Amino acid sequence: MSVADAWAVRRESSGRYTATVHPGWDIAGATDGGYLMAMTAQAVLAETGRTDPVTMTAHYLEPARPGPVVVDVQTLRSGRHRTAAAARLLSGEGRLLLSSLAVAGEQACTSEQAAPLVSDGTPPSLPPPERCALVEPTQGFPPPFMGRVRLRLHPEDAGIFAGRPSGTALMRGWFALGEQEPLSSTSVLLAADSFPPPVFNADLPVSWTPTVELTVHVRARPVGVWLACAFRTRFVSGGYLEVDGELWDSTGRLVALSRQLALVPRG
Amino acid sequence: MSVADAWAVRRESSGRYTATVHPGWDIAGATDGGYLMAMTAQAVLAETGRTDPVTMTAHYLEPARPGPVVVDVQTLRSGRHRTAAAARLLSGEGRLLLSSLAVAGEQACTSEQAAPLVSDGTPPSLPPPERCALVEPTQGFPPPFMGRVRLRLHPEDAGIFAGRPSGTALMRGWFALGEQEPLSSTSVLLAADSFPPPVFNADLPVSWTPTVELTVHVRARPVGVWLACAFRTRFVSGGYLEVDGELWDSTGRLVALSRQLALVPRG
Repeated sequence: MSVADAWAVRRESSGRYTATVHPGWDIAGATDGGYLMAMTAQAVLAETGRTDPVTMTAHYLEPARPGPVVVDVQTLRSGRHRTAAAARLLSGEGRLLLSSLAVAGEQACTSEQAAPLVSDGTPPSLPPPERCALVEPTQGFPPPFMGRVRLRLHPEDAGIFAGRPSGTALMRGWFALGEQEPLSSTSVLLAADSFPPPVFNADLPVSWTPTVELTVHVRARPVGVWLACAFRTRFVSGGYLEVDGELWDSTGRLVALSRQLALVPRG
Repeated sequence: MSVADAWAVRRESSGRYTATVHPGWDIAGATDGGYLMAMTAQAVLAETGRTDPVTMTAHYLEPARPGPVVVDVQTLRSGRHRTAAAARLLSGEGRLLLSSLAVAGEQACTSEQAAPLVSDGTPPSLPPPERCALVEPTQGFPPPFMGRVRLRLHPEDAGIFAGRPSGTALMRGWFALGEQEPLSSTSVLLAADSFPPPVFNADLPVSWTPTVELTVHVRARPVGVWLACAFRTRFVSGGYLEVDGELWDSTGRLVALSRQLALVPRG
């Protein structure tokens, strides 16, 4: 069984898919938003017949719990190169947990197709995974979710687990699924919401920051097993913060830009 | 008549609004995406009874033309501080032009409420509006739309109109509505898609870049008449590019972060 099986969907009828939210993918009792986005994306790809997400936005309406869920997908417009769709994730009892808009298409997957015309950025500078900080989940902090995937944090950003925030709202590290399990373009959506909040390194009295909205632009289909990731928060104001992410694959190619808006509970 | 009247909506019944796409708000024949987002947001605010957008994502499905339109709004979840809604903009003939997800709430509007806990950024350094480059619209380039609002570009970024791109995919400048017309939080959505594409300054063979998806996080209600704005494109690859925007008001406060995914037509 691969890790990616945890967000697989089954087609029930036209536009209707079922899936199971597996236990242990939660943070503070709520299922991780990236996991739910990856699951929703699987249904969008199945319904549209496309291979990759291009852009996806999810609004998180209620916390999801382990158990059966339904994903309803409605195609909004289909063109030659891409299809736009709306998707909703509902609990077994029919409660609306997530509402989403997506464009699916076919990502460039060879170096030649994906060669950028402009690339003003580079992967984060990270020690190799075996020299980064392993995140060892507990029932509390770090949460169980972080044991479902492989996270290796930059040593300079990993002091949060020992009560030593770096002072800068930055979180860098490696992401992978299982041992040698190849990344897919939907696993990139999961990766975009898998790291501890960068604001934990800013030494503010904030707790977990629930995601209001997450948007991921998938810019290439990832190659290899590891993603080099960097997440940054620049503005915490008015009860909200943003998290901006860059995700790069093992060939040094940008595979996604992510941004989320999250709540800042008054600590 | 204020400029903002151009994206006003009328309530027809529960969840149903009508409006008029005014002529002259187009770029290369398609109505500006920020204008359509501002119009859709007006319907969301009217339906939810909230004062300000918090985050809004629009997917652009077909070009909009001048004439009557309908905005359908569905409330997804309403809490104490915010309401999530889905909204769709349809042409008079019932064609789906735009699909949207939004969260509306009440933005902090005093300095004290909006005082940031973290602010890792400053407004772009701009000469005063009267010493920036006035964008004088034509029937072609710059497009008529840019005469509906007041744009003043940073002199270093304004060479595109004279065939002298700066070499960097950056576009900075001032945005305002009419003379002395105060900004609203929906006009921020318009501003987020009002400037010439930063990639025009990168000296690539690209034409207008149609927006696939635009997301705007409104972080404060703007004060004053002018917004100081900076838009940047860092990655052009696989037929897409992103545009990241920062919008600051006259008190030096961040009022919005924007990001769009746009197509790069092969020039």
